[in-house]
Amino acid sequence: MRTQVCIIGGGPSGLLLSQLLHRKGIDSVVLERRSREYVLGRIRAGVLEPGTVALLREAGVGHRMDELGIADEGTVVAGENWGFRVDLKAITGKSMMVWGQTEITQDLYDARDAMEGTVIDEADAVKPHDVDTDTPYVTYYKDGAEHRIDCDWVAGCDGFHGVSRRTIPQDVLTEYERVYPFGWLGVLSETPPVSREILYASHSRGFALASLRNDNLSRYYVQVDKGEVVESWSDDAFWDEFRRRIPEEMADRLVTGPSVEKSIAPLRSYVAEPMRWGRLFLVGDAAHIVPPTGAKGLNLAVSDVYYLYHALVGHYLEGDDSGLETYAEQAARRVWGATRFSWWFTTLMHRYPEQSGFDRRMQETELDFLTRSEAAQAAFAEQYVGLPY
Amino acid sequence: MRTQVCIIGGGPSGLLLSQLLHRKGIDSVVLERRSREYVLGRIRAGVLEPGTVALLREAGVGHRMDELGIADEGTVVAGENWGFRVDLKAITGKSMMVWGQTEITQDLYDARDAMEGTVIDEADAVKPHDVDTDTPYVTYYKDGAEHRIDCDWVAGCDGFHGVSRRTIPQDVLTEYERVYPFGWLGVLSETPPVSREILYASHSRGFALASLRNDNLSRYYVQVDKGEVVESWSDDAFWDEFRRRIPEEMADRLVTGPSVEKSIAPLRSYVAEPMRWGRLFLVGDAAHIVPPTGAKGLNLAVSDVYYLYHALVGHYLEGDDSGLETYAEQAARRVWGATRFSWWFTTLMHRYPEQSGFDRRMQETELDFLTRSEAAQAAFAEQYVGLPY
Repeated sequence: MRTQVCIIGGGPSGLLLSQLLHRKGIDSVVLERRSREYVLGRIRAGVLEPGTVALLREAGVGHRMDELGIADEGTVVAGENWGFRVDLKAITGKSMMVWGQTEITQDLYDARDAMEGTVIDEADAVKPHDVDTDTPYVTYYKDGAEHRIDCDWVAGCDGFHGVSRRTIPQDVLTEYERVYPFGWLGVLSETPPVSREILYASHSRGFALASLRNDNLSRYYVQVDKGEVVESWSDDAFWDEFRRRIPEEMADRLVTGPSVEKSIAPLRSYVAEPMRWGRLFLVGDAAHIVPPTGAKGLNLAVSDVYYLYHALVGHYLEGDDSGLETYAEQAARRVWGATRFSWWFTTLMHRYPEQSGFDRRMQETELDFLTRSEAAQAAFAEQYVGLPY
Repeated sequence: MRTQVCIIGGGPSGLLLSQLLHRKGIDSVVLERRSREYVLGRIRAGVLEPGTVALLREAGVGHRMDELGIADEGTVVAGENWGFRVDLKAITGKSMMVWGQTEITQDLYDARDAMEGTVIDEADAVKPHDVDTDTPYVTYYKDGAEHRIDCDWVAGCDGFHGVSRRTIPQDVLTEYERVYPFGWLGVLSETPPVSREILYASHSRGFALASLRNDNLSRYYVQVDKGEVVESWSDDAFWDEFRRRIPEEMADRLVTGPSVEKSIAPLRSYVAEPMRWGRLFLVGDAAHIVPPTGAKGLNLAVSDVYYLYHALVGHYLEGDDSGLETYAEQAARRVWGATRFSWWFTTLMHRYPEQSGFDRRMQETELDFLTRSEAAQAAFAEQYVGLPY
């Protein structure tokens, strides 16, 4: 088989890139290791920057989002039993959109099917070859046979554990990492959310986050120690802990219910550079991971898609390769910006095991400054809604 | 002897408090352990917030400052061979004032002499007593005899190593501290300053600062490792290192000369609370130390003086004790704000021995964000010119 762009990974970034390219007449194939059911079953991010919303609309997959998503014009940052609202809309003129990754992926699959896009699932042992030459190709196994796709470019949208990044030689790749000494215990429950706007709470017992998917689906988290296992957290234990960490007036109106999903995720910041090697481009989690504080992960993957999509349109439709040449630098600049923001916000809001009294006072004072300073809130808001592309 | 306010410490805060009170008819005595020559010989801070400038004027010691001081309407923040100017005046409507602590102390001594204020120097073994009762007093030795001053209040303006803070029982005092793994090697030289506006430079070899006292007196610093001694730094070695760390176009026009003063200062953040115990008030370095990055030390001492001065005027002239009752809280709030700012600015600009590649990229990205974001520059500027009293 031959295609113009071979996309490794059928999560939201791979599907979105494929969809956008198809609408411009650029041919691609998406290879996904897992089954479609598996991909659609993953509970992930759910808060979109306006840039992400715009690109989903451009891809023709914004209809359900625009009908059912919830516009978030502000967000609440809380300390211990007090909080303040950052008016994102008033400060930046922009809103966030609450719309789950699962829904996005569903819409993208539907759109790919409607356009008869090629998405090959359960593709085993996917492997890019000769990406440092002008004739790259990708091999994989399916139904017991080896297959080969010749292509012009390979887009590595296959996540942190995928093969794409590992294709880049060790002596070319530089990795930057920060592992945080805690995780997030998350619960999804079919209850009305305690707040329509996302709440980030810094409490002496640890961080808590109140998020949502829709009017009857809540997503809540509490910071837990590294090494804790989900089995030791009953639903009741989760609700008790969560209730303690959010401001009292919210705790009083919290509606609890059985967990639909419950899991613990570790937190890390990770960036690999360069994001391009020969004819291979790294996109999203394949090149970078952020802690979920500030909801940057999916948005950052979409910003990579944005740059690569425009670069490929430039190449195929306008005879302009500048976008391809600057992809690594442009994408990485925005990646670093969001990596810094989520690192800063994580560091500000969490309890650290080795934290001194001085460290704790620095956190409290910074929250106090953020409450009082319009400029500090503006700097927060412009990063929260997403730095410019 | 009897006075209303016994002030321990004859540095700028003690003298300023005494001067301000005297002009309102409130009686005080200043006790200084050292000789006047010693106090006047200390080279210290030299960049004043507008709030500090206003209080010096109110004390009647602003004439020489207004004539000879240099208004600083902006400051330059630099990375490795690039930099940007933060327009303090345009952003905040305020400027800083370059005017050395030595000059301030000289003016204050002159003003105290002119008003026949009581400043007792070379007072040995100063000791506050019974400050937790309504009848406190202070004893000291001078010329071989013990003396006693009965008073209403004791103001501890005697610095980090002074007796005042140690008067507060250990079980009452909470101390917060951060010691930085580096020091500043500083040189004073009779050369024209390389920049009229202060330059903060973050370089891979370490931080450098270009400051000034007047048109022919420069104050320059380079970050050095903890434990380095000044004897191992010749003037030439200093100039070579300084030149490497500042942007090239500045290095090209740097005028060097013999050092008039050369010393290494350690960097630390320290706050002790409460800032009041009974009838004893802690002021300035007696309660808190900041690293010099951002020039907050003297300004913070003056802000404590501001609160205590107004509290005592309230008590003696207006029958209003609310200022005395809220001194500890009000002063500490501003102290924490400036402590956070100088900690953040220090952390952003210095090289750390254990720093990872990730940490370094976070610094670079934050500097990049500061360059591009008006909101981030505004938050920087409003803290740099001083948070509101």
